[in-house]
Amino acid sequence: MCAIVGVFGVKKASTVAYYSLFSMQHRGQEATGISASDGEKISIYKKRGMVADVFSQDILDDLQGECAVGHNRYSTAGSASVGDSQPVFAKYKLGEISVVHNGNLINKQEVRNQLIDKGAIFQTDMDTENIIHLIAKSQKDSLVDRIKDMLSRIEGAYCLAIQSRSKMFVIRDRFGIRPLSLGKFKDGGYIVASETCAFDLVGAEFIRDVAPGEMLIFEEGKEPLSEQVFEADFHPCAFEYIYFARPDSIIDSKNVYQMRLEMGRRLAQEVPAEVDLVLPVPDSGVAAARGYAEGLGVPFEMGIVRNHYVGRTFIEPTQAIRDLKVKLKLSPVKHLIAGKRVAIIDDSLVRGTTSKQIVRMLLDAGAKEVHMRIASPEIKFPCRYGIDTPTQMELISSSYGVDEIAHMIGASSLGFLSIDGLKASLGKEQNYSLVSFDGNYFAGGSAESPGCSGSC
Amino acid sequence: MCAIVGVFGVKKASTVAYYSLFSMQHRGQEATGISASDGEKISIYKKRGMVADVFSQDILDDLQGECAVGHNRYSTAGSASVGDSQPVFAKYKLGEISVVHNGNLINKQEVRNQLIDKGAIFQTDMDTENIIHLIAKSQKDSLVDRIKDMLSRIEGAYCLAIQSRSKMFVIRDRFGIRPLSLGKFKDGGYIVASETCAFDLVGAEFIRDVAPGEMLIFEEGKEPLSEQVFEADFHPCAFEYIYFARPDSIIDSKNVYQMRLEMGRRLAQEVPAEVDLVLPVPDSGVAAARGYAEGLGVPFEMGIVRNHYVGRTFIEPTQAIRDLKVKLKLSPVKHLIAGKRVAIIDDSLVRGTTSKQIVRMLLDAGAKEVHMRIASPEIKFPCRYGIDTPTQMELISSSYGVDEIAHMIGASSLGFLSIDGLKASLGKEQNYSLVSFDGNYFAGGSAESPGCSGSC
Amino acid sequence: MCAIVGVFGVKKASTVAYYSLFSMQHRGQEATGISASDGEKISIYKKRGMVADVFSQDILDDLQGECAVGHNRYSTAGSASVGDSQPVFAKYKLGEISVVHNGNLINKQEVRNQLIDKGAIFQTDMDTENIIHLIAKSQKDSLVDRIKDMLSRIEGAYCLAIQSRSKMFVIRDRFGIRPLSLGKFKDGGYIVASETCAFDLVGAEFIRDVAPGEMLIFEEGKEPLSEQVFEADFHPCAFEYIYFARPDSIIDSKNVYQMRLEMGRRLAQEVPAEVDLVLPVPDSGVAAARGYAEGLGVPFEMGIVRNHYVGRTFIEPTQAIRDLKVKLKLSPVKHLIAGKRVAIIDDSLVRGTTSKQIVRMLLDAGAKEVHMRIASPEIKFPCRYGIDTPTQMELISSSYGVDEIAHMIGASSLGFLSIDGLKASLGKEQNYSLVSFDGNYFAGGSAESPGCSGSC
Amino acid sequence: MCAIVGVFGVKKASTVAYYSLFSMQHRGQEATGISASDGEKISIYKKRGMVADVFSQDILDDLQGECAVGHNRYSTAGSASVGDSQPVFAKYKLGEISVVHNGNLINKQEVRNQLIDKGAIFQTDMDTENIIHLIAKSQKDSLVDRIKDMLSRIEGAYCLAIQSRSKMFVIRDRFGIRPLSLGKFKDGGYIVASETCAFDLVGAEFIRDVAPGEMLIFEEGKEPLSEQVFEADFHPCAFEYIYFARPDSIIDSKNVYQMRLEMGRRLAQEVPAEVDLVLPVPDSGVAAARGYAEGLGVPFEMGIVRNHYVGRTFIEPTQAIRDLKVKLKLSPVKHLIAGKRVAIIDDSLVRGTTSKQIVRMLLDAGAKEVHMRIASPEIKFPCRYGIDTPTQMELISSSYGVDEIAHMIGASSLGFLSIDGLKASLGKEQNYSLVSFDGNYFAGGSAESPGCSGSC
Repeated sequence: MCAIVGVFGVKKASTVAYYSLFSMQHRGQEATGISASDGEKISIYKKRGMVADVFSQDILDDLQGECAVGHNRYSTAGSASVGDSQPVFAKYKLGEISVVHNGNLINKQEVRNQLIDKGAIFQTDMDTENIIHLIAKSQKDSLVDRIKDMLSRIEGAYCLAIQSRSKMFVIRDRFGIRPLSLGKFKDGGYIVASETCAFDLVGAEFIRDVAPGEMLIFEEGKEPLSEQVFEADFHPCAFEYIYFARPDSIIDSKNVYQMRLEMGRRLAQEVPAEVDLVLPVPDSGVAAARGYAEGLGVPFEMGIVRNHYVGRTFIEPTQAIRDLKVKLKLSPVKHLIAGKRVAIIDDSLVRGTTSKQIVRMLLDAGAKEVHMRIASPEIKFPCRYGIDTPTQMELISSSYGVDEIAHMIGASSLGFLSIDGLKASLGKEQNYSLVSFDGNYFAGGSAESPGCSGSC
Repeated sequence: MCAIVGVFGVKKASTVAYYSLFSMQHRGQEATGISASDGEKISIYKKRGMVADVFSQDILDDLQGECAVGHNRYSTAGSASVGDSQPVFAKYKLGEISVVHNGNLINKQEVRNQLIDKGAIFQTDMDTENIIHLIAKSQKDSLVDRIKDMLSRIEGAYCLAIQSRSKMFVIRDRFGIRPLSLGKFKDGGYIVASETCAFDLVGAEFIRDVAPGEMLIFEEGKEPLSEQVFEADFHPCAFEYIYFARPDSIIDSKNVYQMRLEMGRRLAQEVPAEVDLVLPVPDSGVAAARGYAEGLGVPFEMGIVRNHYVGRTFIEPTQAIRDLKVKLKLSPVKHLIAGKRVAIIDDSLVRGTTSKQIVRMLLDAGAKEVHMRIASPEIKFPCRYGIDTPTQMELISSSYGVDEIAHMIGASSLGFLSIDGLKASLGKEQNYSLVSFDGNYFAGGSAESPGCSGSC
Repeated sequence: MCAIVGVFGVKKASTVAYYSLFSMQHRGQEATGISASDGEKISIYKKRGMVADVFSQDILDDLQGECAVGHNRYSTAGSASVGDSQPVFAKYKLGEISVVHNGNLINKQEVRNQLIDKGAIFQTDMDTENIIHLIAKSQKDSLVDRIKDMLSRIEGAYCLAIQSRSKMFVIRDRFGIRPLSLGKFKDGGYIVASETCAFDLVGAEFIRDVAPGEMLIFEEGKEPLSEQVFEADFHPCAFEYIYFARPDSIIDSKNVYQMRLEMGRRLAQEVPAEVDLVLPVPDSGVAAARGYAEGLGVPFEMGIVRNHYVGRTFIEPTQAIRDLKVKLKLSPVKHLIAGKRVAIIDDSLVRGTTSKQIVRMLLDAGAKEVHMRIASPEIKFPCRYGIDTPTQMELISSSYGVDEIAHMIGASSLGFLSIDGLKASLGKEQNYSLVSFDGNYFAGGSAESPGCSGSC
Repeated sequence: MCAIVGVFGVKKASTVAYYSLFSMQHRGQEATGISASDGEKISIYKKRGMVADVFSQDILDDLQGECAVGHNRYSTAGSASVGDSQPVFAKYKLGEISVVHNGNLINKQEVRNQLIDKGAIFQTDMDTENIIHLIAKSQKDSLVDRIKDMLSRIEGAYCLAIQSRSKMFVIRDRFGIRPLSLGKFKDGGYIVASETCAFDLVGAEFIRDVAPGEMLIFEEGKEPLSEQVFEADFHPCAFEYIYFARPDSIIDSKNVYQMRLEMGRRLAQEVPAEVDLVLPVPDSGVAAARGYAEGLGVPFEMGIVRNHYVGRTFIEPTQAIRDLKVKLKLSPVKHLIAGKRVAIIDDSLVRGTTSKQIVRMLLDAGAKEVHMRIASPEIKFPCRYGIDTPTQMELISSSYGVDEIAHMIGASSLGFLSIDGLKASLGKEQNYSLVSFDGNYFAGGSAESPGCSGSC
C-alpha cells in the first residue's frame, strides 16, 4: 500500500508531514522518511520503524523549510536494507531532488534494463530510483519537462511527489488506481496526501481529489498550477474501499465507512443467514457487519474484543495454548455468543487461515452455528503489481468453491458479496479495477496494460 | 487497578503467567513481574514496562518450576523506582516467599508505624511489604498460620497470591471488592487471575470465582484446599463493570459486556435523546452505546475511528493542530455525522476534558446536535483507597450540575445513568460498592471501614 | 572491589558523586547508583550498567540536594537482580536512610540468622541490608548511637557511607582493609571516596585518609566531626597496591604507581633475567615493568599494544583465529620482539590462562625466550571474604610449583616477588593483610577473625 | 583515515572481515559495513556505529560466501545519513558490484560534473559513487577493463576493493599514499587490509604490501593475479607513522612503533630538555617518549594514566570541575611529577587546545617545569584532500612561532622534530608526502597533483 504526503508553503512543513504520516501509519509500518527543503537545500531522514519511533523533535528540527515530502513503507518480504526506504534523494544536473512514490510500475524491469544498458547504476530495487534516473537522463532544460519525459516512460499505478529546492510536483497516474487528495490550510499552504484522514489531524481542509492523469505544480507565491498530463482513464482500486483505507477517509469523493456499510447491506440481500446475532471481525469487518445486521434486521454486537496491547511476543507457548496468534489479538465475549446462531463478517478472505481460527474460537465460545460472510467477492487472481500479493496458489478462492471453503474453515455456511453487488455498492459511475475478482485487466483487453486490485 | 495471577501444578508455569499478564495488560502498564518456584528455590524477574517488552524467552526459561505468581502494575504518579514493582520477594524465618497483591490496605500506615516501631525497615511504599513483614513477624510455626495472623491485621481491598518454595496461597478480601477467579487446566494444574480473559488465552477452564473471605491453598499432589478465613461481606466494585474489566471477562458470574449493554438500555429509558444516530466513544463506550441505540430504536454506528498505531509522540504540533491528544487517538467519520443529531456514549465522566474535545470534534465534523450520555452515575466522591483517584476538586460532577457541565463541554445535552439504574443493571442481589457516586461507605456506617469504588 | 563515594555540603552533590563514580569505574562495572538528600527527602536511582550509561542529565537533576552517596558494584556471578545494587534505601523509625557499603562482613550469616529469627525479612543477599536492619532494630534514640550499635555487631572489611535526610556518616573498619580518603572543596563541602583519583576529577583537594576505626559525621554548618569508634588494628589489603587501585591514586599516603615501580625494582633483584627487552602486560604491569627494566638496566618497551576499542563481541570466530580473547585486547609489536629474549611483567598470576596465551603470543611474534615475572607473590589461598575470589583449586600456585607453572604456560622461566620483597616494597610500617600469599589470618591467630587479601 | 578489508577464498569470509574491521576500529568509528558474495548474489549490511555494536551473529550469518569486503568510516562532520557509509552496492550492466574505498579523489567534482552532465544521479557525497558510475558507464565488455577505464579517470589517494559476484579486485593508487597489505591463510585464501594488525587477529600471514599502482585480481581456484596498472610514483603519507596507524602494524615494510621510537630519539638530539622525567601523552606519545627518554638518558614513566572506561558523558559539570574533557580521559600521577622538571611528549600538535590542558594538569600536579616536545614537525598547511582536516586558520603552527605557542599553552619550552629529522627517521629511500609540513605538493610541482599528508 504505502502512503505519501507532500506539504507546501507551511512553516515547519516537516512536522506537518510527520503528523500526516502518523495518521496514515496503517498504510505502511516498515519504514518511514521525510525530506524537507528550505529553498537552499534538501534535508532528509529515513529509517526502518514506525513514524513515532523514527522521528524525534531534534530530527524534525533539522528538517527545515516550508516544503516537505514523506512516505510510509508497507512491510515487504526480504528487504532488510534501509536503502529501500523513501524519500529517495539525489543530486543531478539541475540540482537536488527528492521523490516519494506509492504504487508499482509495470514496465519497471524494461525501463531499468534500458537505463542499465546506458550505464546507469541502481542501488536499490525501488521504482523510485527508475523515476529519478529518467528525470536525470532527460535532455530537457526544465524540471517540469523532464518530469513529463519521465512520465511518458513509466506505466502502472503510482502517486508521486517530487521536491526540488524550491518547487513541489505531484502526479497521479491516469488510471487513478491509488487515491490522492488535495487539502489547504486556513493560513495558507497546501497538503497532498494518500488519505484524507491526514488532513483531519493536521488541521487542513479537504479541497478535492487529485484527478487521474493530473499534475499539480506548487511554487512559492503562486496558486498551485494544475495540468492534465494524461487523459484520465479512471479505474480506482476497489480494495481501498474494501480494506486498505481508514473508514474516516474520503477516497475519490466517497466515504469509506459508508461504502462498507453499503457492502454489508447488499451482502445481507445476496447471502442472508438465519442467525440470532451479527458479529464483525474487529476492526476490519465493523462497518460491513453493521450493514449486514441492518439488512437482516438482526442484532449487531461487538462480540469479539480486540486487544489493544498487542506487542510482538515471541514466547514459545505452552501446550494448552491453541491458535495463539489470533487469540493474542481477538477474544470472544462468550456469554453473548453461547447457544446462539451467529453471523461473523469480515472484509475479505485471502488464505482462510485466520478465518478458520476465528470460526473455531466462536464454536469454542459456544456458538450453535457460525455463518461466515465476506463483504467482498472471492479473490481468485493475484494482483500482478502487488509486491506483497499472495501467489494464486495461496488464494483459497482460486482453488476451492464456496462450500468447500466453508467446510475447510469449519463454518456452518459461507457467503461472499458478488462482483455486481460490489459494483452496485461502490456506484456505477466508475470502472473499478476488479482484476483480483474477475481476472480481467481493464485497459484495451491487453494483459500488459496496468490493472491493479490487489495489495499493491 | 493492577492484575495478579497465580499458576500452580503446570509445566512452564512462568510462561502461563506471562500470557495471563499479557491478556490483562489493560489493568496495568507501568511495570510487570513474575516469580517462579521449582520446589527448591524461587526465581524472580520484574521491570518497568509492558509485559511483551519486559520478558524474553531467556528470562522465562530462567524462571523455572511449576508454580508462578505474577503482577501488572497500574501507572501511578511519582514513583520511578523499579523497587516499587511486584512480586516482592523475601527471605524470612521459614524460608523464601514471594507475594503479589492487588488493591489497597486502608490501615496501611497504622500497621507500618507499628512495624517500624518494632524495628522493621521498609524499602518501598508498597502494601506488599507490610504483608511480608506481618508474615515474618508472626510467631506461628506454619506459613498458613502466619498468613492468617497477617490477614487479621490488614484491612481493605486486596487479592493476594503468596508463593513459598512448595505451596501457593490465594486470598480474596471479605468484601470481594476486586475480582478473582479460579480456572483449571485439562491436563491438571490451576490458575487464579484477576480477570477470566486470562483463562481464555492460556487454555484454562473457568471454574468459579474465589469467594470473598476465602483462602485457597495449593499443594503438590492435592486438590486445592478452600478455607473461609473471613465471613463474606460482599461489596464488589461497580467500576469493574463500568470500565476496568475487559468486556469478555466474567466478574463474579456476570459478563462485563452484557452488564454494559444493560446499562446502555437503562440509560435510554432514563435520559433518552432525539437523535438520528448513536455513537460510542471507542472502545470504552461501545457496549453501552449498543444498548442505548437499541433502547432508543435509533441506528448505532462506529462513527468515531480509533487509531491503532498510537505510540507516544512528543513532537511539538504546529499551530493548525488543535486538540492533538484526542485526535491522535480518535477521528470522526464526517460523512456519517454531518447534518445529523448524534448521541455520543461514554462509560464515565471524570474531569470532562476529553469529553469537551470529543464534542468539539463531532461539531467540527458537522453534527447538528451532540447529546452526550454517560452509562454510569455522576462521580462525586473520590475513592479513598485509590492511589490514582483524582481529588474531589478535579471531579467535575462534585462541583457542577449536569446542565452546567453540558454547557462547559459544549454538548446540546448531557445525561447520566442514575444510581438506581446502575444497581438495577448490575442486579439487586449484590451490595455494590458505590461510594464514588453516593459517598456512602458501606460497612457499618463507619467512614473507616473499607469501601472502594474508584480506580484503586 | 566496589567503590563508594559520599559528598556533603556541595551544590549538585549528585553530579559530584556521578563524576567520582565515573573515575572509579575500574572498581566495579556491574551496577551503579546514587542517592541524594535535600534535607527533606532522599531520592535514589540505581541500575545495572556503567556509570556513563546509567545516568542522564534528567536523572541527576532529579537527585537534588547537597548530600549524595554513591556506589559502583563489582561484577559478581549469578545475581541478575537490580535489587542487588546500592545504595540501599529504607524508611525506619527515625526516618529515611540510604547506605552504601564496600567490603564483606564475615559474620553476615550469623547476624542475618539472628535478625530473621526476630522476624526480619531480607529482600536481597547484600550485607547492606544487614546494616540497615541493625540500625533499625537498635533501641537507641539517635541515629549516631544506632550506628554504633550496628558497628558493634558487624565484623569484617567495610567502608560505609550512611545518609539520613540531613547528615552523612562515614565509617572505615578498624583493620582499614579497604581504602577510604577525605577530600575538601575550595568553596566548601567535603567528599569521601574509595580512591583519591575521584578527587582529581571533581576538583577536590586530598586532606587525609579516613583512619581505621574512625567515624566521620557531617552536619550542615559544622566541620566534620571525627570519632574513633574502634581502636585501629591496621591491616590494609596489599592487593590495592598490587592491582585494584588506579596508579594515580594515593592509598593510605602511598602512591600506587610508585609502589608498583618499587615492586618491579625488587623483582629485578630477586629474580633477574638475562633478556634484551622488558615488556609489560598493558596496563596492569606497566609500572612494575618499568621498575624491573630499571633494576636490570635493560630497555623497557610498550611492546604489547592494547586495543582501546574492545567492546563485547560475541561473534563465533573462524578456525584460523586462536586465543581470540587475549588477541582482541592485546597485540604484540612483532618487529620489536622478533629474535629477542624478552621479560614480560604482570601484576599477578591467578589461573594462568591468560599468561599462557600471552607467552604463546610473544613466541609467535618471534621472541627467542620469554621470561615471565610477576610483581607479587604466589597466590596460594583464596580470600575468604571475597565474593568473586577463585576457589583454591583454581589458584594455579596452590597446586603447582614455580617451575611447573613455567612449563605449563610455556615460559622460558617464571619468577614471583617474594612475600618479604612485597613487604619491603610497601614499607615495613604497616602489617599488610597477606592471607592470599601466606594463609595467615592476621588478627589473634583466629581463622574467624577478619582477614582479606583477595578480590573482595 | 578509514579502513578497508577484502577477504577471498575463505569460509565465513564476512566473519574474517568483521574481526579485521574490529582490529582497525582506530581508523574509523563513525560507521561500518560488510558485503559478502557467495557466487550467486551479494549481500550487504552497513550502519552507523562501532564494529562490535553494528554486527550480530545473525547479521554475519546472513552475509554468506567466501568473499567479503568491508569498511570502517572515519568520523566526518555534518553527514548524518546512513547512505554515506560503505560498501556501496549497485546493480549495473554486468551484474552486481560492491565497492569499498579509502582515500580522497582530487578530481572528484570534475568527474562528478561530467557524469551528472550525462544524466547520472548521485545519492551520496561519497567518492565511491563516482567509482561505480565510471565502471557502469564504461563501454568495455569485461569488468576488469571497465575498472581500468575507471582508474584512468580518477586521481588522488585511494585504496579500493571491488567485489563482483565471483571475483575481487584490489587497487592501490600509484602514489601509495594510504597503506594496503596482502596476507594469506594457512588453509588457503587471501586477505587485503589497510593495516597488518588485522592479519594478526584473524590468523593470516603477512605476505607483502600491495605496490603503488598495482591491481590484484582474485578469482576462484587461481592464484591472485597481479597487474601493474600504473607506474609507481611512491609518496607514502608520513602521518601513518606519526599517528594514524597502530604501533604493531607494518606499513610499507616498516614497523610503526620502531619509527616512532626513532622519531623520539632524533627529537632528543634536536631539541633536548633538562628534565628529571620524560612522560608520554598516552597512548599517542608512548613510543616517541621512550625514544626521547633513551636519547636524553633520563627516566621514562607512564606518569599520566589513561582512563579505559571513557564512555560519552553529557552531564553538565559542577563549578569545581576544570578541563573536564581531558581529565575524563587522562590523570597525572602526582607523586611522580611533583617537584620535577618533566618533558611531555606527544605525536603532533594541531590546535593546541588539548596540549594547553595537559600542561596545566601537570603544573597542577606540582611539576616545576613542563617541557613539551612534539615528535613530528609543525603542521602549517592543511591537507587538501582530507575531509576532516582543520582549516589553515585552526592550525596553530600556521599562525604562531614555537615560542609563542609555548607561551600560549603555558609550557616552559616547546620543541618540534624537524622535517629533516622526520625524513631521517623514516628512512631516506622514500619520498614521503610532507605537504602538511612544507606545503610542497610532490608531483611535478603542480598544485593539482595529488599530495596528501593530512587526516584524509
